[in-house]
Formats: sequence, structure tokens, C-alpha cells
Amino acid sequence: MEKVINVGIVGMGVVGTGVAKILLNQGRLLSERTGTRFVLKTVVDLDWERERGVDLTGVQTATDFEVLVTDPEIDIIVETVGGIEPAFTMVRRALAAGKHVVTANKALIALKGQTLFREAQAHGVELRFEASVGGGIPIIKSLREGLVANKIINMYGIINGTSNYILTRMHRDGLDFDAALREAQTRGFAEADPTLDVGGGDAAHKLTILASLAAGGFVDFNAIPVEGITELTALDINFAKDFGYVVKLLAIYRFSEEKLDLRVHPTLVPGDHLLAAVNNELNAVFITGDYVGDTMFYGPGAGQTPTASAIVSDLVDLAQIIQSGKPASIPTINPEKQVALFSLEEITNRFYLRLFTLDQPGILAQIAGVLGRYAISISSVVQLETHGEDNYVPIVLLTHEASEKAMSKAIMAIKEFPFVRPDILRLRLFK
Amino acid sequence: MEKVINVGIVGMGVVGTGVAKILLNQGRLLSERTGTRFVLKTVVDLDWERERGVDLTGVQTATDFEVLVTDPEIDIIVETVGGIEPAFTMVRRALAAGKHVVTANKALIALKGQTLFREAQAHGVELRFEASVGGGIPIIKSLREGLVANKIINMYGIINGTSNYILTRMHRDGLDFDAALREAQTRGFAEADPTLDVGGGDAAHKLTILASLAAGGFVDFNAIPVEGITELTALDINFAKDFGYVVKLLAIYRFSEEKLDLRVHPTLVPGDHLLAAVNNELNAVFITGDYVGDTMFYGPGAGQTPTASAIVSDLVDLAQIIQSGKPASIPTINPEKQVALFSLEEITNRFYLRLFTLDQPGILAQIAGVLGRYAISISSVVQLETHGEDNYVPIVLLTHEASEKAMSKAIMAIKEFPFVRPDILRLRLFK
Repeated sequence: MEKVINVGIVGMGVVGTGVAKILLNQGRLLSERTGTRFVLKTVVDLDWERERGVDLTGVQTATDFEVLVTDPEIDIIVETVGGIEPAFTMVRRALAAGKHVVTANKALIALKGQTLFREAQAHGVELRFEASVGGGIPIIKSLREGLVANKIINMYGIINGTSNYILTRMHRDGLDFDAALREAQTRGFAEADPTLDVGGGDAAHKLTILASLAAGGFVDFNAIPVEGITELTALDINFAKDFGYVVKLLAIYRFSEEKLDLRVHPTLVPGDHLLAAVNNELNAVFITGDYVGDTMFYGPGAGQTPTASAIVSDLVDLAQIIQSGKPASIPTINPEKQVALFSLEEITNRFYLRLFTLDQPGILAQIAGVLGRYAISISSVVQLETHGEDNYVPIVLLTHEASEKAMSKAIMAIKEFPFVRPDILRLRLFK
Repeated sequence: MEKVINVGIVGMGVVGTGVAKILLNQGRLLSERTGTRFVLKTVVDLDWERERGVDLTGVQTATDFEVLVTDPEIDIIVETVGGIEPAFTMVRRALAAGKHVVTANKALIALKGQTLFREAQAHGVELRFEASVGGGIPIIKSLREGLVANKIINMYGIINGTSNYILTRMHRDGLDFDAALREAQTRGFAEADPTLDVGGGDAAHKLTILASLAAGGFVDFNAIPVEGITELTALDINFAKDFGYVVKLLAIYRFSEEKLDLRVHPTLVPGDHLLAAVNNELNAVFITGDYVGDTMFYGPGAGQTPTASAIVSDLVDLAQIIQSGKPASIPTINPEKQVALFSLEEITNRFYLRLFTLDQPGILAQIAGVLGRYAISISSVVQLETHGEDNYVPIVLLTHEASEKAMSKAIMAIKEFPFVRPDILRLRLFK
């Protein structure tokens, strides 16, 4: 006999509407594959004037979230409101009321996950979040279940589609940052206020989630060093290209027994690495496990139907758990364990250093002298003859592995030179 | 309280030993993540003289498979014998005895799956096979669970590591097929008898499994058109490169409401497609779902520890099912449904056609004439001036979309020309 799972959605924006579309249009396929009929019972939103492109005949519509929580027939609530409030209060309330919850809300899981997972545990329900990282890519499931036998050694994620679109246009077509951003906005790949995307905050939210899963305990979002792509110029992208690299905004996870090395920053990725071929608004997470070796998971990181596809996979998993009558034996993230992170100062990297200097003799020697004093060894240098508008010429250096602390000091010292312009850019190389 | 799952392994070759290694070395991690202690209770093999690089102290060793089947404590049997017999008899016997089974055996699932899934169903147990396709890549789980909301539109798999290694060496370093194969054998990426790998049979086994999962019913392995890479020459790889393509052995799944279009053959993949960047012995499956869009799953397709990683993920899933006391609600493959396939003659493709002709005037016109007669339209031609050893010159044509049937007839007609050498090569372009 076919089993039934009743679903409620709060937040009928782009993603919530996508979930409704799948539940309404793909019902037969889901029922064939899972033996379960997923019924979209109630959808909650404040605005019922807007045309959503989905026929909600037979579905109860409401404006009050309590309708979902107090309906004993609703098995799972999908939260697609986004942002911290009122989403946090709603999810917490739903869990406390004994409802399983599925969300795509990365900020919520990254910043409030600890509280929410405790709430879920206390009430014997599940909080699922496959869509919160990598959109339609089943990356949470792959990490949590597919690679369950592995200690995760490294992860490198291209997990902000806006930034990747901008960087792709800069790399392929020589656009500068502002032009590429405007184009991303026009094409719907960037918000009117793109700060969270191009500043690295969104990627850091997602890294918090991936790292918490991989490490089996909570990571403090605020302890992750984050740098966005806003300082990158077309010139830098081109220099990197000439050196054989593609610049990508990477979310990085590097395991050590002592602490985790987590960060988000633009990174020079070797041109022949698979991550270098991940272009436009697409996402990918490259994961190395101690037994499996190198793997990569690629796909659309956002968008109505990919995100909804991930949410529905959570619904199917939860249906199985509900029908078995037992909680899942694989916990999501242990809310009682905190994982320590390295500060940026504690780690080493290979660096890309770009500066502008007046075109005078002996300048490169003086800069190299400063780097040498801080035990930073240069692996390549390019100094161009062409002058900028202001008589400054660019110099670009790639270094061997050096400490972040030493590099910060060296940059401060270099800035003291009267012939150096203050806009020195430091980037990091993939390792 | 910690739950215990007792595991038995039959076949302590490379992969079986890998599973033992994970269960013995990664026990604490697995227990932390899953709340379950996985105990390797008994391992069965005929040869107990060989050194395996794993300490089996405390593990029962046996030579008789019945020891596993008749032990009421054993919850799951891992079959890593390989091949059809005696693996088939063993797996069937285990299922009939009420044991869950995990296997990495693609030939077994592809050729005997229907019988085995019936057996499993009849006895209320599970037969899992994550490691049978794509080695350590969680591709079965991703397809079955992660993308459960999607009708699968297309799949393109690089799922034979041996062939991919050979093609990579031919493409990058200009080796001919024989030299690349010898190197693959030396480096352990090819068997002494490489027929199943380079002939496409292994990829077809895996495609049978992927297609059966995606289509929700059984696919007849013998109905899949299969062509290997043995006819490819360094010259062809180079021509393809000049046209902007990389030749990959692809396992192809294309959905239509009428029938499935499944095949395995060398394919010209556009150089900027992500699949073109999957090199050496690595595997990847590119999947398009109707809601998720384009995704790709990449990783090691073989090897001791990657394959074992996949097998252990099946063990963890089964532990959950065993502990819930209910069968999984998502069936693996429905053994009662057969899926119809197009024959190669029924489909259309863009073609790469390479032939050698004597260097006489008017030859290209005559060949183009034949193609035109069969409504095959040419998109590019290259005719080289350099002569081969035997006064024949190569001509390469790329065509627009044309029917396979028409192309077969055209090739037969072209072979009639006295100035054409009989070794005409037809390849297909990615679509």
C-alpha cells in the first residue's frame, strides 16, 4: 500500500515555488521510485497576489506559519524564507513542535545551526539542508554518506556562483571586475547588493557547513578568514593566466590533527586542474578522502529547479526515516563538539604579489631584499615595461611557501618605500 | 548504546583486503559517525598463504563460503570474488539465506542482476552495489537518492579507467594505441588481457547498471551497441585535436519517451567540455536531470581503497536499514520491468570519418558525392598532403547529424572505390 507524506512549505519565493513544482509535477515518478506519495498540503506566504507559474489547485494556502506547525497531518516543513529572521524563529518553532524540517538556508545553518540541531535532537526530529551548499549537487549526501568511510583530508569548493561567473568573464573575456559584476546582475547571477557573494561571506557560510560535516563538530563561522574578489583587476587575472593559473574564489578545508585550516579567498588554481575548468555560475567541490582519494562534485549552485531538486531529495530521505519509525543513525552535525581553526597568521602559503612602482633603477632589488629579510623566497617575477597612466609600472612576484605573518610584515615594509603605490595585492596559490 | 553490525567478506583479493583495512583501521571514525560498531567477523578465501598487508588478528578466517551463510551473527556479506561464477552462486545463496549482500561486481549485476534482485526481494534483504560503477565515486547513491526528484535526460560516463588512461596518453603525448596500452599494463592500469576494458565491455556492464537505475527497470546488456578504442590511431587522436575535440570512450544514456538510446563508443568530446578534462585513469559521470540540470561526479574508478570506500558506504546504509527493521523504501532496480533500447541503426549522430585514398584528382568530390547521395552533409574536411608509406593520404570528414543506417550504407559504397583503402574509421561526435 502506498504511504503518504504531507509536506508544508513556508516561503513561496523562487525556491519554495520550485519545490511545489516538483511535488506537483513529478509526483508519479517519486511515487514509483520511493513507494511514497508526497502530498503538498499547505503553502504559507504573506503575498498571495503574485503570479508564481504553478497551479496550486487543491493546495491549502495560508499567511500564518502556525497553520503548518499546528496541523498534525503535516510531516515535514520546508523552510524557503531565507535569511536569519523570521526563518530562525520558524524553524526552531517547527522542530520544537516535532516537525521535521528541510531548509536551503545556508546562513541559518552556518550561524544558528548549533541551536537548531540541539532543538532537533531534543525533539527527536531531523533538520536537513542538502540545498544549502552547492544547490542541486548532492554534496551533503556525498560527504555524509557516500564518503562516510573517509577522513576528509582536503576540500576545495567553488561554491559561490556569482563570484565564479564574474571571474570566468574576467578570465575569458578580459572584463574588469565592475563590468563583469554588472553583467552578472543583468543576467540574474548577482543580487542588487552583491556584498555577501563577492565579499566571500556566502562561500564562508557554506564552508562552515561543509567543514562542520567533515570534521563532525561545529565550526565557528566568525573564525574563518575570508577575503572576497573585489580587489582583483583584469591585470591580475591576466598575469595569473600568463603564469598558467586561473583565479577562482575557493572555500578551503585542510585537515590536520591539531586544528583545521579553513579559509575563503581568491586562489591561483593551476590551469590543468579540474577546478580550473569549472566556469560561469557553476559550482564544484573537490574532496580528498584518506581512502577514496580525489573526487569532485559539480553542478548548478543555485536556481529554482536545482535547489528544489536537492530539497526534494531531503524529503525522500526523511520519508524513509519517518516510515521506519527510527531516527537516522548517521547524525548530521554534532552540536556539542567545537572544532578549532588555525588563524590566517598561523599558516603558510605560496603567494602572488602585485604592486605598482615608479620606473626607477634598483627597485626590484630593494623589494626582493625586503622579502629575503622575511625569509620569503621568490619563484617568478614579471616586470612590465608599459607604463600606467601615472608613470607606475606593475611588478608581479610569485613566491615559494612562506608564512602569512612574514608576508604581512614584508608588505608593510614594502609600503614604506616612497616609490611603491599603496595598492599592493596579495593572492594565494592553490596547494 | 552502541549497535553492532557483523560483516563477513568472501574473496580476500585486492578489494576485499581494502574493505578489511577500512573496517579494522577506520572503526572509531565509523562508530563516531554512525553510532554503529562494524565488526569484521569472518573472511573467506581459498588462499591463506599470501601476505595481504593487513593484520587479521581476531578475525576468523575460513576457506568455505558456507561459514558466512550459516553464521546467524553475520548481518552482511561482502562479495569481492569478482566474475560471474562462483560469485553468482554465492550471492544467490547468501540472499536466499536472508543475508544482505554488498558487491563491487559490475559484470554480476549487469548480467545476473534481474535474478539476484528477485532473490533479494523474495527474502526481504538488500543487494547493494555502489562500488560496481565509478569505484569510489558515490555515483549510485547520487543517482538513486541525490537526484531522486529528476527524470534523467542524459548521462555520459567515462567509466573505464584503462581506456581513459590510454586515450589520455595518446592525446597528450602522441603515443599510438599499442604503446599506450603497454604503458597502462606496466603501471597497473590494465590487465594482462585488456579485452574487456579496451573493447568497451566493461563500460557497457557499468552502463547497464546506471541505465537500469535511471530508467527504473532492467536493461538488456546484450542490446547495447558497443565499440571499443582498439581501432583508434595516433593520427585520429591528432585530427580530433585539430578540430578542437578530445576522444573519450563514453558510455551514453539518452532518454526518450519511446526507447532509450544507450551505447558505448569512442566519442569526440568538445575540448571545452568538463568531460574533456577528465584524464588518466580517472572516471566521471556527467548527468543531466530535468530539474537539476547538468551535474558531474568525478573520482577514482578503481583501486583497492577507493573501491573499499564505496563498499563501506553500502555497509553503513545497510546498517541503518537493519537497525530500522524495515526494508529501504527506495527500491534499487525493479526486476520486473524491462526497458526497450534503440538499435544503433535507429539513431542519428554527427560523424568523424577517416579514410586513406590514393592521391589522385577528383577523389574528394567522388566521396562527397556518395555522402550526398545518402543525405549526409559534410561540415569540415581535412586532406593532408603528406603521403603515408604506401602512397595513400588520409582524408578526414566531419558530418552534420545523419542516420547511422545511411552512414553504414555510404561507407559500404565508398569502400567500393578502387582508390580507397578498406580501413575506414567512423567515430561519433558528442551531442
